Amino acid sequence: MSARYKLILTYDGTNFAGFQRQPDTRTVEGELTKAVNLMAKKPTPAIIVYGSGRTDAGVHALGQVVHFDFPFDIPADSMRKGLNSILPVDMEVLVAEIAKPEFHARYDVSGKRYVYRIDLGEFRNPFKRNYAGHWKFPVDEAKIRLAMKDLIGEHDFSSFVASGSSVRSNVRTIYEAKVERHEADNELVFEFYGNGFLYNQVRIMVGVLIEIGSGTRPVDDIQRLYKLGDRRYARRTVSASGLYLKHVYYEGDDPEHPTKLPKHQR
Amino acid sequence: MSARYKLILTYDGTNFAGFQRQPDTRTVEGELTKAVNLMAKKPTPAIIVYGSGRTDAGVHALGQVVHFDFPFDIPADSMRKGLNSILPVDMEVLVAEIAKPEFHARYDVSGKRYVYRIDLGEFRNPFKRNYAGHWKFPVDEAKIRLAMKDLIGEHDFSSFVASGSSVRSNVRTIYEAKVERHEADNELVFEFYGNGFLYNQVRIMVGVLIEIGSGTRPVDDIQRLYKLGDRRYARRTVSASGLYLKHVYYEGDDPEHPTKLPKHQR
Repeated sequence: MSARYKLILTYDGTNFAGFQRQPDTRTVEGELTKAVNLMAKKPTPAIIVYGSGRTDAGVHALGQVVHFDFPFDIPADSMRKGLNSILPVDMEVLVAEIAKPEFHARYDVSGKRYVYRIDLGEFRNPFKRNYAGHWKFPVDEAKIRLAMKDLIGEHDFSSFVASGSSVRSNVRTIYEAKVERHEADNELVFEFYGNGFLYNQVRIMVGVLIEIGSGTRPVDDIQRLYKLGDRRYARRTVSASGLYLKHVYYEGDDPEHPTKLPKHQR
Repeated sequence: MSARYKLILTYDGTNFAGFQRQPDTRTVEGELTKAVNLMAKKPTPAIIVYGSGRTDAGVHALGQVVHFDFPFDIPADSMRKGLNSILPVDMEVLVAEIAKPEFHARYDVSGKRYVYRIDLGEFRNPFKRNYAGHWKFPVDEAKIRLAMKDLIGEHDFSSFVASGSSVRSNVRTIYEAKVERHEADNELVFEFYGNGFLYNQVRIMVGVLIEIGSGTRPVDDIQRLYKLGDRRYARRTVSASGLYLKHVYYEGDDPEHPTKLPKHQR
């Protein structure tokens, strides 16, 4: 009997041309589709994999979610182990579950959480080149924290969307926005939780915030950008390498226990 | 006027076929030699770069040291910036100094310090595949700490050298050997400081220690291996990806301030 599976997966985006399947290019969806079809002994793409949304080339995931319908009803953990034995080393299925037949990884999303890491080191750090953005100027976190309050709530983020996006509305709600300095790593780590994010929105928001922290934009500049509604005024888009899709939320998730990841990977 | 330069450099070993220059292969020494000769406007290899010693493919450096003679006496920090503007992103000169004319990066070494990281996660972590070894079985650190005491001092490490090594003596002295559990990263981090290390010695020692910690070798097994003096009994060589050359010591170094790296990179 067939069953619908939900997977939570992590990947290092460095060597993928993004999430979405494309011919003759190494993508996350492409590798996963091949693995799922191989397990089912079907010619790719007999089984289609649906993701919660795309991630760009170089963007990482700590908890991307996908679903697919599999022709045989095998135990969820056997699905996880089977796929991990086929998948390349830069991606890993953390959790496999048998989902309700009507679950949809994309349409049922109620929110997403992203992390953005910025290395504040004086020098380029070879170990972080693919895993963090880089900013070598002094940053005043208090200014950033103050400015981030303007992000909370429902706003028209037209100043924070990359040109080329074709969504109907640029209105989104941010529930949580925070920044921490990780002294040991000499990094600023941003985290954003909202009902959805526009194309490049997180990377553009971080670009504005880091400029506010450096004093090249006023602390209330986000309010000005809301009024302008024009992406050209936000200017900077920080590097894809610092961005991590941390978690995808669905209606009906237990808010106290949003993830079922092993402790150290939460 | 010409001058001898000493560099401290860091590199991500993932995409290098090791340190040593080889034809038609991307190596650390090869990239550095090209950059130094380009700065001097000389055909490679008019200026030869001497390293403190080799690192294998996949092994990283936080503080590798090299020297070379440069035909012009330019300020040390201009040398650092100039080389960094030429070098690829997976290596970075942290410090450049004008050295004494008789300084030799290899012959004057008085000691080296290595770090080895082991990820203890249940799953393969795609973000660590190139930056740590992996061990998914329970480990008793107390046993490892006890066994590490047997490493301190002067010993014949013939059981801990890869076959193919052609050094005259396998006697080396270890001054310091420690292990810490980094809870946040779920890692065991080993550190070894000695007057020199044989080929693969650190990776073989860590392999023995992790087996002691897992209970598959007795806690006093290092003493048995010293007596056997035969590498076949140590068996496991842990992955190159977890190994970092942290520091190279020279006679005359100030022991209180062994490095001049920026604070967060020490």
